[in-house]
Amino acid sequence: MQCEIVAVGTELLLGQIVDTNSAWIGEQLALSGIDCHRHTTVGDNRERMMAAFREALDRADAVIVTGGLGPTQDDITREVVAELMGVTMERDHGLADRIKSRFAGRGRKMPANNLRQADVPVGATPMLELPGTAPGLVCPVGDKVLYTVPGVPWEMKEMLKGTVLPDLRRRAGTVSVIGSRTLRTWGQSESGLAEMLADEIDRLDVEGGPTLAFLASGIEGLKVRITAKAPTPGEVEAILDDEEARVSSIIGPIVFGLDGANMESVVLDELVSQGLTLAVAESLTGGLIGSRLTDVPGSSRAFRGSVVAYAGDVKRELLDVTDGPVVSEEAVSAMASAVCRVLDADVSVAVSGVAGPDPQDGQEPGTVWMATCVDGETETVKVVFPFDRVRTRQFTVISVLNLLRLRLLKRRGG
Amino acid sequence: MQCEIVAVGTELLLGQIVDTNSAWIGEQLALSGIDCHRHTTVGDNRERMMAAFREALDRADAVIVTGGLGPTQDDITREVVAELMGVTMERDHGLADRIKSRFAGRGRKMPANNLRQADVPVGATPMLELPGTAPGLVCPVGDKVLYTVPGVPWEMKEMLKGTVLPDLRRRAGTVSVIGSRTLRTWGQSESGLAEMLADEIDRLDVEGGPTLAFLASGIEGLKVRITAKAPTPGEVEAILDDEEARVSSIIGPIVFGLDGANMESVVLDELVSQGLTLAVAESLTGGLIGSRLTDVPGSSRAFRGSVVAYAGDVKRELLDVTDGPVVSEEAVSAMASAVCRVLDADVSVAVSGVAGPDPQDGQEPGTVWMATCVDGETETVKVVFPFDRVRTRQFTVISVLNLLRLRLLKRRGG
Repeated sequence: MQCEIVAVGTELLLGQIVDTNSAWIGEQLALSGIDCHRHTTVGDNRERMMAAFREALDRADAVIVTGGLGPTQDDITREVVAELMGVTMERDHGLADRIKSRFAGRGRKMPANNLRQADVPVGATPMLELPGTAPGLVCPVGDKVLYTVPGVPWEMKEMLKGTVLPDLRRRAGTVSVIGSRTLRTWGQSESGLAEMLADEIDRLDVEGGPTLAFLASGIEGLKVRITAKAPTPGEVEAILDDEEARVSSIIGPIVFGLDGANMESVVLDELVSQGLTLAVAESLTGGLIGSRLTDVPGSSRAFRGSVVAYAGDVKRELLDVTDGPVVSEEAVSAMASAVCRVLDADVSVAVSGVAGPDPQDGQEPGTVWMATCVDGETETVKVVFPFDRVRTRQFTVISVLNLLRLRLLKRRGG
Repeated sequence: MQCEIVAVGTELLLGQIVDTNSAWIGEQLALSGIDCHRHTTVGDNRERMMAAFREALDRADAVIVTGGLGPTQDDITREVVAELMGVTMERDHGLADRIKSRFAGRGRKMPANNLRQADVPVGATPMLELPGTAPGLVCPVGDKVLYTVPGVPWEMKEMLKGTVLPDLRRRAGTVSVIGSRTLRTWGQSESGLAEMLADEIDRLDVEGGPTLAFLASGIEGLKVRITAKAPTPGEVEAILDDEEARVSSIIGPIVFGLDGANMESVVLDELVSQGLTLAVAESLTGGLIGSRLTDVPGSSRAFRGSVVAYAGDVKRELLDVTDGPVVSEEAVSAMASAVCRVLDADVSVAVSGVAGPDPQDGQEPGTVWMATCVDGETETVKVVFPFDRVRTRQFTVISVLNLLRLRLLKRRGG
């Protein structure tokens, strides 16, 4: 089964919008075991849209078209598909009522031109999902199929998950259910992780079962994705549970969370479950640690605040740092202890380092001292990041939060 | 003149990377007055790459191919283009030396397979730019042309600017030079800005001259882009200078900077030029104000630090906030004054508000009090943002920095 993607929109060609839809759909197709050999982008132009749709249908079994379904005169995907199918357009009154009720639900009156969105090519089936006002359509073309979905990402995603992907899998004869789970890790390189899991991957190759894939995600760490296929959702979950347990037992505490969890939310949850409050003392990160922690709704249950001591004398006056270099073990250790007292918190993290681009106090850019303070005891780590200013700051945030996570795990265990 | 873009890379089809190159190139082509009717993405597959290149060349006068120029066996763009041109590959020894010296310059030994990158189709010309180790090539195909550039965005951009765009303009017979300048604004809606500039746009329509375009950029504000065309770079600059002065005189101080400047860098520059230091007191932003300021290299010349008082009692203990609601004019005013004293700074900004999703102290999410303190005098503003948590925090940062910018401008003027 082969499926191509065609994105429609002059604004995409002009670079006013970056097309993130095609990448997302590409990933979903791969997860569903459906091949995708080409993405195409064309403008809102009848002739060029027609050519792109035809060519894609010649090569593939199915085509997903995003965009061009709005209510304005520019939005001509429906008309072009009707011509391609060799049929006329007809008002779908049930669909018109559903669109009207979308407006009524928001207390707004529907502009007359929105009714255009209820005109569908004869033979096409509107999708059940209608997150916005643009209906998705399943359009048979000979023994092939073309799906039209809106360009608005969250509307598109709902229709892909609800209608398009299940329909594609049915057509591909895939009667089984596919599910995946992502283990999020921090602290290992991709090759290191691959080495740790080499035996397990070999075992899965020989015995069959779920597959493992590594996805590098920059400052979000490395993800290990387990993908399983089985006749029922319950069986898929059981396979995922079993494989998650195996992988976790092999790679251990470098797994910090599952699926949507990030380092900040994991640390905050652990603090709340142990009834602890957190303070932060920042230097090179300038507020980024606190900012990322407070991105998480409900962070006020544990996060008390942060002292951003960017100037050296602020570190000395507010955070008990003594004379001498501020990028040092002594300084960062003093910062971690002092900020617990100043902000009246149970635990803390502190960082002091050289973000670059220039050296500081004779230390190279990328040199970072980190400290954690738990139950009054301070531990420190020095890292030299080989990155630019932006990435040095970002990696510092995740690294120091990971150090705190490991100490909190140990505290809970012991 | 028509030019298509073909992005090569299986990782793009699988959604492991979002293709931002095509959008950027599309924008540059539009700015150069060159039409682009299609973007295509294909995997690292000889047959499918060949088909995509041929089809693009059939439709257009020129094709820009990104990706597939690396040193590994997967990277076959060079070979496919040679086949398309009907020529063999030949080692370019000058190019080989340049690639070797790229490695030597970084103190590294060149792996042998990197020499593959010096094999070029006979008749193709390597570009002068070599920011990485993958050379870009100008490849004549009949009376048309195909450019190959690396997929790494900064390498691609250098070659586009240095070779591809000038070459395309020459082929298009565009003897004129095109230039643009962006005025960055904060504090007006797109329709408000369009209304303010309606007469000027009408005047330009009638009299000819540069064009004006509005670009919405979310938390980066609205951009007004002036694009001018003239026989020489000097004349383009003169037109841009003239139009910038006209637009600035119409829309006034909502223009905060030009081109690459952002709100943080503009505020920091103004502080440095007036010899002032800055302190920040943050609540709902959790450190985001300090984080964005310290994203700017050299921010330590003015930024002293920040007190992130997320918990209410931290505001009271460290920042002189008295009993009563912390999302209030009194509280934010006290925070701004106190943080100047605590961090020994000349000026300050302070924010206290409800990021959401839940109300706080009976105040709705989006309610934000902001204060600026300059020369010991505090001014406050209340805003109710209609946004979610993330955008409320982001808009708070830019809004409060803009308030400080306007006060600093007034201070300099008077």
